[in-house]
Amino acid sequence: MNAEIISIGTELLLGHIANTNTAFLSQRLAEIGIDVYNTSVVGDNPSRLTKALRQALLRSDIIITTGGMGPTVDDITIETVATVTGRQLILNKIILNDLKNYFRLRKAKFPSDNIRQALIPEDAKWIRNKVGTAPGLIIEHREKIIICLPGPPRELEPIFTGKIMPYLVKSFKLRQVIITRTIKITGGTESLINNKVKDLLTLKPPTTVGIYAKLGEVDLKIMSKTNNYKDASMAIQKLEYKIRARFKDRIFGCDEETLESAVGGILMTKNKRIAVAESCTGGLVANRLTDISGSSKYFVMGVIAYSDEIKKNILCVEPETLRRFGAVSREVASGMACGIRLLAGADIGIGITGIAGPSGGTRVKPVGLVYIALASDKRIIVKEARFKGSREEIKFQASQAALDLVRRSV
Amino acid sequence: MNAEIISIGTELLLGHIANTNTAFLSQRLAEIGIDVYNTSVVGDNPSRLTKALRQALLRSDIIITTGGMGPTVDDITIETVATVTGRQLILNKIILNDLKNYFRLRKAKFPSDNIRQALIPEDAKWIRNKVGTAPGLIIEHREKIIICLPGPPRELEPIFTGKIMPYLVKSFKLRQVIITRTIKITGGTESLINNKVKDLLTLKPPTTVGIYAKLGEVDLKIMSKTNNYKDASMAIQKLEYKIRARFKDRIFGCDEETLESAVGGILMTKNKRIAVAESCTGGLVANRLTDISGSSKYFVMGVIAYSDEIKKNILCVEPETLRRFGAVSREVASGMACGIRLLAGADIGIGITGIAGPSGGTRVKPVGLVYIALASDKRIIVKEARFKGSREEIKFQASQAALDLVRRSV
Repeated sequence: MNAEIISIGTELLLGHIANTNTAFLSQRLAEIGIDVYNTSVVGDNPSRLTKALRQALLRSDIIITTGGMGPTVDDITIETVATVTGRQLILNKIILNDLKNYFRLRKAKFPSDNIRQALIPEDAKWIRNKVGTAPGLIIEHREKIIICLPGPPRELEPIFTGKIMPYLVKSFKLRQVIITRTIKITGGTESLINNKVKDLLTLKPPTTVGIYAKLGEVDLKIMSKTNNYKDASMAIQKLEYKIRARFKDRIFGCDEETLESAVGGILMTKNKRIAVAESCTGGLVANRLTDISGSSKYFVMGVIAYSDEIKKNILCVEPETLRRFGAVSREVASGMACGIRLLAGADIGIGITGIAGPSGGTRVKPVGLVYIALASDKRIIVKEARFKGSREEIKFQASQAALDLVRRSV
Repeated sequence: MNAEIISIGTELLLGHIANTNTAFLSQRLAEIGIDVYNTSVVGDNPSRLTKALRQALLRSDIIITTGGMGPTVDDITIETVATVTGRQLILNKIILNDLKNYFRLRKAKFPSDNIRQALIPEDAKWIRNKVGTAPGLIIEHREKIIICLPGPPRELEPIFTGKIMPYLVKSFKLRQVIITRTIKITGGTESLINNKVKDLLTLKPPTTVGIYAKLGEVDLKIMSKTNNYKDASMAIQKLEYKIRARFKDRIFGCDEETLESAVGGILMTKNKRIAVAESCTGGLVANRLTDISGSSKYFVMGVIAYSDEIKKNILCVEPETLRRFGAVSREVASGMACGIRLLAGADIGIGITGIAGPSGGTRVKPVGLVYIALASDKRIIVKEARFKGSREEIKFQASQAALDLVRRSV
C-alpha cells in the first residue's frame, strides 16, 4: 500500500510559504504503515495538475492533494480532479448550508464566490471542515483513492487525523503498526551523541534508530514497524532502556515533551517557585517557561535587565562587582540570580548574562560567551558556556542551557 | 530554462524533518527567472534516486539535489549521480585537505568515514563548504546541469547564493528579472484586507499581487517578471504606491522588516526608551524587542509580573485597583504601564494583562481577552483585544498588538 502527495499552489513552488503539510501527512501515513515514495508540488495550473494526477494514478494506490480548494479562480483542485476522473460536479446542499452558517456566525455576508466550495465530484465522500470553509473529499476511482484536503495546516490536520486515517485503516484493513519513540537529549554535540549510539544507528528494520540534531538539542528516534502492537512496543522499550543507560540524566524528555514542560513538571512536583533575571536572553527564558499552561503555579516573576543601572537598582548587584568583573561575568550572573530570588521571594533564582552579538564582543569576551547562575537556599551554581550562531541562535542556546541547569539542579 | 529539485533523505519522506530547502531554492531560482515545475523527495534508496534522476534528466534543464552527502553509508547521492551520468569517482586532494583541516580546527580526530566526502565525479566543479564538510558539486552532463548540495540549510544556503546563482546567471546568460516586494500589514483580518485589494489580486503577469495571511499579520506580495530591471522596478513602485494609499499606517514594513525591527527603528529615530511590564505574554514582547541587534539603546527593562503580589510590590499597581477591577482589566494594564515607566525611568511604559488560556477564562473574561496599555509623559492609551487560538497563538497576537501600539503611538 503506497501513497503519493501532490501539494498544489504557486506560492509553494515559488517558495513563498514552506510546505509543512507533506511532512505532517508523511509522518501520519507512516504510522499506519502506508509508504510514501513520491511527493511533488505543482502550481495553480490545471494542465500540470492533470499530468501529475494521471502519473500518480498509474503508480500509487492513494493520491492525496493539498491546497487549491479555496473560493477563488486560482483554486483548481476540485475541477481538475473531476475532469481527470470523468466525474460531474454536483452542488451539495449540506456543504452550502455549512458555508452559509460559517459566514453567518462571523457576522459576514455570504460571498457568492464561495458557492464554488459546495461543488463536489459525484459520489465523492466529504468531510466537514470545522475550522475553515473547504470540506475534505474522498473519491474512490477504480482501484485507487483520491483524497483532497484544504491547504491551511490547521484545517487539514484535524480532517486527516480525525476522519481520513480511520477511513484508510478501515478500507485497507491495515494491520501494520508503526510505533515511534523520540528520546530528547540536551547538553552534548551531535557527534558526541552519535559516537555513543553508533551501533544502534545501523540497526536494520523492523526496529531502527535515527538521530536528528536541532539547535541545542539532539533527538534519538526509535521506530518499530511490525504487524502487532505488542512486539513493536517491546522492541522499543528494550532500545529505550539501552539508550537511557547510556545517557542517563542527559535525557530530558520523550515525544511531545519540551525542555520547558519538563522543567515545569519538576518545579510543580518539587513544589519550588522560580524567578528569572535575564540580560542577553532578553525574556526568552521567561517566555518559554510561561508557554506552559499552569506555569503561574511555579513561575513568580522575571526581570529583563539590559543595563548596568537595572542590574544595580532592581537586582541589587553590587556596583563594585560590575566595575571589577564587568557585566558579562560569573560574579554578575550569580549576583543577578541571588538578587531576583530575594526580590521575588522565590525558591530558585536564575541569572543570565552574556553577549548575544552580532556586535559587542571582544577577544577576551567574544560573542556567544554566556554565564548562567542558579541560586537556591542551599547553593549557587554558575556555568560558563560559549555558543555559536546568529543573535537569535545564541539567545536560544543560552535559554536551553538555563532551563537544563534548572532541570538538573532542582 | 527550468529546474527540478530532488530532496534526498528518508527522514524527509517520513516527515521527521520539514523540507525547507525546496522553498528556499524555489524562491532564489524564481528571482533569476528559472522556473521550477517539479520538486520531489526520495528516500536514501539508490534505485529510487536513479529513477528520479533519469526522469529529471529527460524533462528538466537543471537538476538540483539536496542532502545525502554526509559521510555515512546512508549517504548515496554522489555515487548515484556518478553512476547515472557514467562518471568515475575521483579522490580530490584539496577537498580531503579541507576536511582534515575542518577536524583539526575542532580538535577532533579525522574519522576515516569522512574520506568518502572527498570523492567526486570526474570533471565535476566543486564549491567549498565553509560551514560543514560536504562540498557543493556542479556536473555538466550533455546539455544538462546537475547540482548537488549538502542538506543542512546553513550549509546549502551560502553555497547556493554565493556560488551557484552567479554560475547559473553566467552560464545561461539569464536576462529575465523577477523583483518582489512584500508589504506587511497588521491590525486587520485577511478578509478585510482582501476586500480592499480585490482588484489587484486578479492582475495578470508580468506584475501580480498575492496575499498571504500569517498569525497577526497579512502580507501583500507584489511580483514583477520582465526582462529588464527598470520596468520591473517601476511596475512594483506603482503598485506599492496604490497599496500604501489604501492601507496607510496599517503598513508596518517591507520585505525583511519585522514588526520588532520597525518598532526598534522608530524608538531609535525618536530617541525614546521603552520598558515593558508583561503578564499574559510572559516575556515575549521583551524577547521580540531584544531579538534586534542594538536594542540595548532603547530597551531599558522588562518585568514579567505573573502574580498580583509582583504587580503590587514591584510595579506599584494599587491594591484597590486589583481588588475592584481584577488583574485582567483596563485599569491594571494602565497601572502596570505607568509603574514600569517610572521604575525603569523610561520614556514609554507598556503594560499587558490578559488570559492566555487554555484555562482560567470566565464568561465575562474569556480566554483571549487582553488589555494593552501604553504610558508616556503625555498620555495613557489602553486597548482591549480578543484573540483566538492556542496559548502560544494568543501570546503571539497579544505581543503583535502591543508592538503595533508602540509603532503607531510613539
